[in-house]
Amino acid sequence: MRYPLLETIDDPADLRQLPIEQLSVIAAELRRFIIDIVATKEGHLGASLGVVELTLALHYAFKTPDDKLIWDVGHQAYGHKIITGRRDNFETNRQFEGLSGFPKMQENSYDAFGTGHSSTSISAALGMAIASKIQGNTARNHIAVIGDASIASGMAFEALNHAGDSDANLLVILNDNAIGIDPSVGALKNYLTQVKTGSQRQENIFEALNFNYFGPVDGHDMEKLLEIFTTLKKIKGPKFLHVITTKGKGLKQAEADQVVYHAPGKFDALTGELKPKNIHPQPPKYQDVFGLTLVELAKKNKQIIGITPAMPTGSSLKYMMQQFPERAFDVGIAEQHAVTLSAGIAASGGIVFCAIYSTFLQRAYDQLIHDVALQKLPVIFCVDRAGLVGADGATHHGVFDLAYLRCIPNLIIFAPRNEASLRNIMYTAQLGLESPIAIRYPRGRGLELNWQNPFKQLELGKAEHLIKGSQLAILATGNFTETALQLAAVFKGNVSVYYFGFVKPLDLVMLKRVFKKYNTLITLEDGVQSGGFGSAIAEEAARQKYPGKLEIFGIPDQFIEQGTTEELQHALGLDFESLKENIQSYLE
Amino acid sequence: MRYPLLETIDDPADLRQLPIEQLSVIAAELRRFIIDIVATKEGHLGASLGVVELTLALHYAFKTPDDKLIWDVGHQAYGHKIITGRRDNFETNRQFEGLSGFPKMQENSYDAFGTGHSSTSISAALGMAIASKIQGNTARNHIAVIGDASIASGMAFEALNHAGDSDANLLVILNDNAIGIDPSVGALKNYLTQVKTGSQRQENIFEALNFNYFGPVDGHDMEKLLEIFTTLKKIKGPKFLHVITTKGKGLKQAEADQVVYHAPGKFDALTGELKPKNIHPQPPKYQDVFGLTLVELAKKNKQIIGITPAMPTGSSLKYMMQQFPERAFDVGIAEQHAVTLSAGIAASGGIVFCAIYSTFLQRAYDQLIHDVALQKLPVIFCVDRAGLVGADGATHHGVFDLAYLRCIPNLIIFAPRNEASLRNIMYTAQLGLESPIAIRYPRGRGLELNWQNPFKQLELGKAEHLIKGSQLAILATGNFTETALQLAAVFKGNVSVYYFGFVKPLDLVMLKRVFKKYNTLITLEDGVQSGGFGSAIAEEAARQKYPGKLEIFGIPDQFIEQGTTEELQHALGLDFESLKENIQSYLE
Repeated sequence: MRYPLLETIDDPADLRQLPIEQLSVIAAELRRFIIDIVATKEGHLGASLGVVELTLALHYAFKTPDDKLIWDVGHQAYGHKIITGRRDNFETNRQFEGLSGFPKMQENSYDAFGTGHSSTSISAALGMAIASKIQGNTARNHIAVIGDASIASGMAFEALNHAGDSDANLLVILNDNAIGIDPSVGALKNYLTQVKTGSQRQENIFEALNFNYFGPVDGHDMEKLLEIFTTLKKIKGPKFLHVITTKGKGLKQAEADQVVYHAPGKFDALTGELKPKNIHPQPPKYQDVFGLTLVELAKKNKQIIGITPAMPTGSSLKYMMQQFPERAFDVGIAEQHAVTLSAGIAASGGIVFCAIYSTFLQRAYDQLIHDVALQKLPVIFCVDRAGLVGADGATHHGVFDLAYLRCIPNLIIFAPRNEASLRNIMYTAQLGLESPIAIRYPRGRGLELNWQNPFKQLELGKAEHLIKGSQLAILATGNFTETALQLAAVFKGNVSVYYFGFVKPLDLVMLKRVFKKYNTLITLEDGVQSGGFGSAIAEEAARQKYPGKLEIFGIPDQFIEQGTTEELQHALGLDFESLKENIQSYLE
Repeated sequence: MRYPLLETIDDPADLRQLPIEQLSVIAAELRRFIIDIVATKEGHLGASLGVVELTLALHYAFKTPDDKLIWDVGHQAYGHKIITGRRDNFETNRQFEGLSGFPKMQENSYDAFGTGHSSTSISAALGMAIASKIQGNTARNHIAVIGDASIASGMAFEALNHAGDSDANLLVILNDNAIGIDPSVGALKNYLTQVKTGSQRQENIFEALNFNYFGPVDGHDMEKLLEIFTTLKKIKGPKFLHVITTKGKGLKQAEADQVVYHAPGKFDALTGELKPKNIHPQPPKYQDVFGLTLVELAKKNKQIIGITPAMPTGSSLKYMMQQFPERAFDVGIAEQHAVTLSAGIAASGGIVFCAIYSTFLQRAYDQLIHDVALQKLPVIFCVDRAGLVGADGATHHGVFDLAYLRCIPNLIIFAPRNEASLRNIMYTAQLGLESPIAIRYPRGRGLELNWQNPFKQLELGKAEHLIKGSQLAILATGNFTETALQLAAVFKGNVSVYYFGFVKPLDLVMLKRVFKKYNTLITLEDGVQSGGFGSAIAEEAARQKYPGKLEIFGIPDQFIEQGTTEELQHALGLDFESLKENIQSYLE
């Protein structure tokens, strides 16, 4: 048995039976367990390795699940999952119908709140503390564990500002490792460095916000942690504990290269070495098509500026940041600020590419409407991870964007169907637009090995008739256009394919022709059916009194859990075979 | 002439010709001018009176419009508008086709950035500073004037965090008057009080964020302001000036009752006394139906908790805050936090009513999706100011909500058609739901004098057939249902009226009957056509292969400026007469 003591822990209550001395044994086994599983099953590694001691100390000292424990973002919650009854099926982590990669209330009673997006934990824990008080429960503890990258995000500050002015029984634990997914940035980060090194000795920011501040304390020192928790349990009101940890703790490579080992893919569990990736040439990731194309464009167009909120690696803006550090910025987990900053740049004539994941653009929805679209500022949004994203699951699928963007006046929306189409729209956009554009593209790889072809200017709002067919037309957008082409190939001559790269403005001339010519239309997209591309076609069909049949294929009105994109598409009837059967039935 | 010197100022350049001593004369005239106009034309008063000296000093000391000056929110920008060439048409402020009540780039070159929603100014100014630097302009100043309520909002913190870590030529001016629309709240507000009174002498929060801090300085002392601006212009990098002002300065009543005189309606320009309002009995404001009904419900249901982000007066949550201060909270301008706080309360079994204006709910879109709907937490959102809001204009119309809410799984959406329907859905919701609900209702008054009738539980997802007619059916939601009833009365016997209070889930049984029975349908809503209620009907029409005509009436795909609701509806073809003509043409 590799984990003899850990295997006796089916619940934190078991943990609390152990003498304190044995916690370090559990810590070693837990770290080993996480490494062993993630090495083969993949997932997020560094964050959970960094909080092994903190996880054990919290569950040992506090009475979870009655005491409420919330893990901000949740990348770091693997240890928590493993000791709360999910050890034996932890190998299904992030898999279809397996455990979620994030804390999830429906999964386990120890998951006090579902997380995934950052900086929500203090608000949620404060809400629970307010509810406890009104329910007459004054003993319950409410704990938010939040990283230094996440606490710099606006909503965390809003929560601190409210909590500090309350008498809530709240403990905020700052897990300070100076890194989020990429290294933390910003003035607060520099300030925390001063606090840690002791050069900041005065009342600090958290005390200024009326928190009872403790720390900094070594987050790998179990005894210190337990000692301080004993003290903290006796103190009512808002408390703040500053804990210093090392991301990737206990695996040499993970400590040394914290960005890569955030989610390293497969690696050797003993040596820590990464497994060699597929060495056959593959089409590029869409993020790299964006990142490298931006560098190409920025070389020629000196007005180009790049912005990312905390995703330099994930969005591949890092390439521009390396080549043009004066013109490309990581602003931290600050989507709201990133969008309005971009608006300010555009208002002064800069040509700004703002790279945000689809699911995180939800954080800047008002800024997009009020600061960009209303003011008709030609910001170029590069909306990555649109559509189904796979293993990250329900918190991260980028399936709402077409619906929530489509209702915004002045906004152009484009969904490229391949690398060339992404490159060409980027090229076109930086030539100068009169209004903002959202270019949304999926996670994962494109279609072509040789993709760095010469640029071609696109005509705004123009759809393309890709394949002619007599009986039925598929109206597709984004990466489902490729599926449409494959379907047309099966039903050759019968199925027509129209590519609507521009979801807005719609090509009404083309659409009029389509409505005239076909009695059966299907629309195909990797976004929600309610309000998305198909919905736009349905609105226009009503407007033009289209008399034929129209079927909208897309994500149904439910949250979609994790799985490979293929598994999820199959489950939703959006895979090639399911679509083929559907079309077959229409043609009969 | 009441304003002899002010009338010589057609541009800040004129102001800069004057000797310093004359600025106080201008200040007095400007204050008088603002009072005179707002007394008869209505608008926002207190904020602009508070910054008269600051406005003049800024335009005198800095080279606007080349130096960029951004007024956060913009309530306080009347003086700025008046001295930047808009004096003579300032009486059209907030009127249809007149001046916007907020700074607006398209209106005037001195409006460096459009505002309306709070806390955007630092991000925008920083963006402009970054653009200036890249364009080689190192002399330009970039100034954000932001209030103490607004600076406590998350995105302002995000911007400070970024700016403090930059070398941007940025000046943030904190206009600290301890009040937003309602008195400021939160730990930062308490802290600022310490800073102002001098009990805080150490490095302060803004210095901790690496700003060069100046102040506090009396914002009504013109000479002090000019002196400090002279100093500040010589210093590069991020600077912070803390200015203390009095909201309503110069009008006794406005200083004494700052909440009422934020936007007092008509008043006597000389005495400051409010003009008596219409004394005839009137139907209640929807906000009061919400606020007073909540008190009624909270008396019986001890689990009810109320939350508002900075709108206790505007949302009428103040009634519950007065009666149950332990159970109702103003959390400040913190929509993101308000929503996730509500999620936390609901996760612990509290029944939470979260009151947010439609346009501000855009600020918490991700929290609504990720923290509430995904986790199926039964938060009750009371979405006020939905639809066209009148004089506040483009920044404040609540016309996007049906579209951006409809794509969210698990969310119930309800638009009451009158007071009873709002009361009944609130009653129904607090009995216990299994998922969240958004109840959206308009600004302004309802329909009935006697509205506090006994509660009736509503069946979720049920539409109502209100009027029978043979030829055409109107499918209406929200307050347009009343218009539909009036239209049906004109075309009696021919026009049927269906009320879809539940925009989601749609009553598919009723809809099936409708699709079968009528060849002509029109949908009617006070939200955008793209993706809203009519769009939902169009999607379902496609799904059910409805062969008839369907026309979607709602807000077209453009931003709508200010005006009375009647003027705007007329301009958009949504007034009674225009709709009547449309229906007439269908019936012919």
